[in-house]
Amino acid sequence: MNKKNWGENIIIGNNVRIGNDVIIKHNCIIEDDVVIGEGTYIDSNTIIRSNTSIGDKCNIGSNCIVGEYWMDFYKEHKKQEHVLTIGNHSLIRSGSIIYAGSEIGNNFQTGHQVTIREKSKIGNNVSIGTLSDIQGNCTIGNYVRLHSNVHIGQLSKIDDYVWIFPYVILTNDPTPPSENFVGVHVNSFAIIATGSIVMPGLEIGQDCLVGAGAIVTKSVKPYEVAVGNPAKGISDVRRIKNKITGEPVYPWRNHFGTYMPWEETTFNEWYDSLDIEDKFKII
Amino acid sequence: MNKKNWGENIIIGNNVRIGNDVIIKHNCIIEDDVVIGEGTYIDSNTIIRSNTSIGDKCNIGSNCIVGEYWMDFYKEHKKQEHVLTIGNHSLIRSGSIIYAGSEIGNNFQTGHQVTIREKSKIGNNVSIGTLSDIQGNCTIGNYVRLHSNVHIGQLSKIDDYVWIFPYVILTNDPTPPSENFVGVHVNSFAIIATGSIVMPGLEIGQDCLVGAGAIVTKSVKPYEVAVGNPAKGISDVRRIKNKITGEPVYPWRNHFGTYMPWEETTFNEWYDSLDIEDKFKII
Amino acid sequence: MNKKNWGENIIIGNNVRIGNDVIIKHNCIIEDDVVIGEGTYIDSNTIIRSNTSIGDKCNIGSNCIVGEYWMDFYKEHKKQEHVLTIGNHSLIRSGSIIYAGSEIGNNFQTGHQVTIREKSKIGNNVSIGTLSDIQGNCTIGNYVRLHSNVHIGQLSKIDDYVWIFPYVILTNDPTPPSENFVGVHVNSFAIIATGSIVMPGLEIGQDCLVGAGAIVTKSVKPYEVAVGNPAKGISDVRRIKNKITGEPVYPWRNHFGTYMPWEETTFNEWYDSLDIEDKFKII
Repeated sequence: MNKKNWGENIIIGNNVRIGNDVIIKHNCIIEDDVVIGEGTYIDSNTIIRSNTSIGDKCNIGSNCIVGEYWMDFYKEHKKQEHVLTIGNHSLIRSGSIIYAGSEIGNNFQTGHQVTIREKSKIGNNVSIGTLSDIQGNCTIGNYVRLHSNVHIGQLSKIDDYVWIFPYVILTNDPTPPSENFVGVHVNSFAIIATGSIVMPGLEIGQDCLVGAGAIVTKSVKPYEVAVGNPAKGISDVRRIKNKITGEPVYPWRNHFGTYMPWEETTFNEWYDSLDIEDKFKII
Repeated sequence: MNKKNWGENIIIGNNVRIGNDVIIKHNCIIEDDVVIGEGTYIDSNTIIRSNTSIGDKCNIGSNCIVGEYWMDFYKEHKKQEHVLTIGNHSLIRSGSIIYAGSEIGNNFQTGHQVTIREKSKIGNNVSIGTLSDIQGNCTIGNYVRLHSNVHIGQLSKIDDYVWIFPYVILTNDPTPPSENFVGVHVNSFAIIATGSIVMPGLEIGQDCLVGAGAIVTKSVKPYEVAVGNPAKGISDVRRIKNKITGEPVYPWRNHFGTYMPWEETTFNEWYDSLDIEDKFKII
Repeated sequence: MNKKNWGENIIIGNNVRIGNDVIIKHNCIIEDDVVIGEGTYIDSNTIIRSNTSIGDKCNIGSNCIVGEYWMDFYKEHKKQEHVLTIGNHSLIRSGSIIYAGSEIGNNFQTGHQVTIREKSKIGNNVSIGTLSDIQGNCTIGNYVRLHSNVHIGQLSKIDDYVWIFPYVILTNDPTPPSENFVGVHVNSFAIIATGSIVMPGLEIGQDCLVGAGAIVTKSVKPYEVAVGNPAKGISDVRRIKNKITGEPVYPWRNHFGTYMPWEETTFNEWYDSLDIEDKFKII
């Protein structure tokens, strides 16, 4: 362990396994039984709680809390035993709080002041924007992008390649207050635009577009465009044209590939190149 | 004072009174004239400013600022003289900022990154969710539950047993910009669902239900269901049935008691058992 | 340099220039090549990254990150070279994160947990409320006031004397997801009320009023009142009367001057007193 570039006032617990070329900056607190993969950088004032495992070549910004306590801690103040894993090449920006008891894939990225609660299962290549609030007990697939200030209620299920824009809320309580939560299911390639609210238990169909500010009170069909309060289907996404070029815009996978696995080619070429068992169904 | 489980780099001011079995973790700053009740736990990197009084058996998470400065501090940098009291058994989760000059009851609970400004008066058994922003100079009763990212404008008055869901905004300025604020009054047992906005000075009636995404431009009557933009009364809450069981859902107090004083019994039994002077009026 | 009132555990880098009467509190980290103007106060646990320049008589609250890293840092972990300047008499409240590579004028003020990303150009006398999220690459004029939890998309342009209220969102992507951003332009003296969403590329006219909860899908004319989803022009602001006094309320500059340059006089007197080259056009 080469501490050459490490900061001051660092506190490190027992049974901490730190890979090669890890850098830890000032005032960090690393609790017991933490694993930090090689080449990972942990910035000043960050707390990594016990039983957290962080992959290789990650960046954890300043003032983060990684492996945050569950409610049980506050009663007994015993060692935090829930396990958190964060995959390789992840970037957690400053001020974020990630609970113990979640499982997060590779190439994960957050903005600032993000909260991710317990029992969240998050795939690879997911990005979650500044101030987003993932309430836990939910499933997020691969290549999902949540913009700033998105609120994901418990029991939500978000499939691969979904885009959710700022201030969108996925709710879960059909008769508030209650404990009979029913999550929203967002199907792959769906787009939920800024400031929309989705009622509990609804299906947001593959490749649909929920317009900005929609209050979604019934399920949205694949390829449907839904807008308004309450939201109504007004069109098919395949009819939307770029106002400047006149070209069709949707399905977006045919026109946009930044950070997607088809970034270097086209969606169709990439999809055709997949092994049979990796091919997923497109309606 | 038994500092056995205390952390490192703690700074403690003058005239600090610390109860038995208090634990203070690394890098905390406790300013002058602070009182910390017995069995309270203060996690790392937290700042408790002068003249703050925290009750017994509380938990203050990491990276909190408790007793935050008013505007006057920034001019003179003199000692913070405004008083903050937080009751027993409270749980302030990490990243929250609570101003001096507020009064908060027992069993208080916050999520993360909550801001509570000065001159807030908050009763017992209140819970305020992650990212909520209480603008100060407001009154919140007992057993009130605010979910994530709720915005409570100055001069708001929230009675007992009120539920407010994510991204609800209580406004206060009828002719923005102005300084002629008029607060919203939310009556007991009312429910304001996700993403609603309530215009200044309105009454939100006892036991009413403001639907998700409503823009409330006139007062809502007791038991009324109000939805839409602008919100209109469309029904009576007592007509709403649970879609699965067919049972009535509202008034919610008859069907839901988690964390409420009638948790172990029913609302009616509990209400009947109250002393005459504790009975409150139900319309 | 008089360190009489300085705190403990302060880390200061190379080539830091600190003015007279600066106070730095506990656990602060001041990186290389930082300039701090005279009389400035930096509260505990705050990080000032390299190449940040802070003016005279500023207050930087606790737990702030000033000069936050761009994406490039996370790849190489090299010294942060982007320059941030913050003008005199500024007040950054606790928990805020301001990126390197922005330019901010005098008398700047933020609430808590504010994020301001890179390439933001912000004039003098601007105030940005708690939890607001300025996405960077935008221009904000002078005397602009953003309330809590405002989201300013990249490429937005906000002129002088604009008021934006809580949870307003200025969007920028006409065909999400894409990289063809088009910013909103908010003209001077406009008011955007709570919870409104403005679609990409629109003009928000001088002195107009966008009502609370409006979903703005076409440009709003000067002096127009626009409300609803989708927003429609329903009136002229000059017809709005104060419900109590019966007096006209708008243009607001004739009735409200707090923190404005005409605070001590009237707008018209102040405007008449301006030098010819300082006079701006009012429609």
